[in-house]
Amino acid sequence: VTTDPIPPTIEWRRGRVRLVDQRRLPGRLCFVECASVGELRDAIVTLAVRGAPALGAAGAFGVALAASTLSTPRAVASAAARLRAARPTAVNLAWGVDRALAAYRAAGPESAEGAAAALAEAHAIAAADVSANRALGAHGAALLPDGARVLTHCNAGALACVGYGTALGVVRAAAEAGKHPHVWVGETRPVLQGARLTAWELGRLGIAHTLVADTVVASLMADGEVDAVVVGADRIAANGDVANKIGTYQLAVLARHHKVPFYVAAPWSTVDPATPRGAAIVIEARPASEVTTIAGTRVAPAGVAVRNPAFDVTPAGLVTAIVTDRGVARRPYPRSLSSRSLSGLGRKSTPQVEKRPNAGGG
Amino acid sequence: VTTDPIPPTIEWRRGRVRLVDQRRLPGRLCFVECASVGELRDAIVTLAVRGAPALGAAGAFGVALAASTLSTPRAVASAAARLRAARPTAVNLAWGVDRALAAYRAAGPESAEGAAAALAEAHAIAAADVSANRALGAHGAALLPDGARVLTHCNAGALACVGYGTALGVVRAAAEAGKHPHVWVGETRPVLQGARLTAWELGRLGIAHTLVADTVVASLMADGEVDAVVVGADRIAANGDVANKIGTYQLAVLARHHKVPFYVAAPWSTVDPATPRGAAIVIEARPASEVTTIAGTRVAPAGVAVRNPAFDVTPAGLVTAIVTDRGVARRPYPRSLSSRSLSGLGRKSTPQVEKRPNAGGG
Repeated sequence: VTTDPIPPTIEWRRGRVRLVDQRRLPGRLCFVECASVGELRDAIVTLAVRGAPALGAAGAFGVALAASTLSTPRAVASAAARLRAARPTAVNLAWGVDRALAAYRAAGPESAEGAAAALAEAHAIAAADVSANRALGAHGAALLPDGARVLTHCNAGALACVGYGTALGVVRAAAEAGKHPHVWVGETRPVLQGARLTAWELGRLGIAHTLVADTVVASLMADGEVDAVVVGADRIAANGDVANKIGTYQLAVLARHHKVPFYVAAPWSTVDPATPRGAAIVIEARPASEVTTIAGTRVAPAGVAVRNPAFDVTPAGLVTAIVTDRGVARRPYPRSLSSRSLSGLGRKSTPQVEKRPNAGGG
Repeated sequence: VTTDPIPPTIEWRRGRVRLVDQRRLPGRLCFVECASVGELRDAIVTLAVRGAPALGAAGAFGVALAASTLSTPRAVASAAARLRAARPTAVNLAWGVDRALAAYRAAGPESAEGAAAALAEAHAIAAADVSANRALGAHGAALLPDGARVLTHCNAGALACVGYGTALGVVRAAAEAGKHPHVWVGETRPVLQGARLTAWELGRLGIAHTLVADTVVASLMADGEVDAVVVGADRIAANGDVANKIGTYQLAVLARHHKVPFYVAAPWSTVDPATPRGAAIVIEARPASEVTTIAGTRVAPAGVAVRNPAFDVTPAGLVTAIVTDRGVARRPYPRSLSSRSLSGLGRKSTPQVEKRPNAGGG
């Protein structure tokens, strides 16, 4: 295993949760160490750590932190509930919290085994994240032609996960397969995760890329300069509707208009069978200051009204395929994403799911 | 005439061209005085003054400045040529230069009458700009329902013109007609003319508005919160293709997808019969630093490759109507925008152009 040029987004270190501080990128690569669930929750709310898969691991490590620092099961449960509610849209945060909490409870919450079990579950989630991303990366890379010009949005790279990345995992796998992809990086206002994080990752990885404002994407498509759009997901409903960073939906509409395939890359844990369709997903509203000030400088008149939703929902009908660690799901998504086909996906192809030969499944 | 809450964008003052310094808004309202054509050209290149109609007046006042400060017709012609080439996409800059230069030459360039004629022509262009905007505003306002929620992009307001505005002129006229419009202001990366200028203008005018990142617009449309898109234009080809601020084209595609009318508001001088179609329009590429730094702060990794076109072209097929001072042009635009129908537009309706009753024509 060669050294990854991008450090792990989240790690357990000497009883603390260590995060890459994504608020400081691309200017500085530094870390924040959370010694309490409150500190971790603040890191999540202020976007020191973000990205659906990373939040899943953060939720689980947060429960491990609670179990090792708090004295009663009741206090642990209460801290877990607050952590779970820190950001509402990504399903992974609640999922990670719930998994670690279940392990904690199964081991006997009053005992030292409870904390150890929660931590072991968090480590398992973190390890599974990286291997799932490598698997989905291989599935997705098979969809891209040589020299593919891939448009992505926000950051669905290593920094959005524990490592490797989902949408950028597909790009990385294509690069590793010698396909020489080129990435159009949409800057992704308001928080500029594309400009700040995705461009930084691709630079570290030595993958060709060009940064564009979010206003440029349709022109690129019209000029025939985009072969595929690949984005991540914060939650995928049972019918295939996809919640992801604000601006994703319009990319999907623009891709459809220009006959460009629109791929969503996400680990299977992002599929939420309990969410029947996108309309049921709570869209987080973020502070106006994310729009009115940039790096501390005001760019809009004081007191201006702002609408700042953090996510949007792309209807399943606009999604060409959903690339997961278990294979590539296609329409009709209610079938390809249902738990019944899920059980068979790792082993054999189905009409709804294309399995890449010789690629590691989930 | 009541006092306009927005000062004139461009004025002739004591032998100098005085501009609102749009680089400083919304933080400060201040002015830059240009005593030479070189200073005016710098102001244009650095976007102290921008917007197609304003550039038309700037071009004409620039020739007046050249005629009053330079000693030979040859030097005036050379300064005019440099000014004309300062920005390539908007047709109005070249048009304003050419009109003032023709007046200068007709009056006898060696005489004091030459400079006076150029200045008189510039004043005429400036006055005609405001009256054209009021006329097109009235035509456009008639297209909007009461309480219309209008999405606009960039700044096509008073600051983009000598006064009143084109797209925002339509909104102002609707407000003056008691229609209570609400404006969604797209911030318009990279230069943020929406956030910095349009929000500032609407605040001064007391017109309801909400600022959004450029990534939010399709979600607003999908939620049924946009009744019309109204934008300006930098150049309109003879076939109705529209060059305007980068991001306009994708708004038009998104509007079509969501069945929202897409209106372009521009004075007739923006129609360029010499440009047969959009593909013939030169699209200005602007510096990477507009994308990688915001208000002096770096927001992307050093050395990242950037594609930063300032404009895009919206095909005529996506344009519901073109609102001009001479009336509302509709498809087929080659007919409604042709010089033959132009001559009759001010006086009577034609099948291609709807004339609003009781509204001042061009």
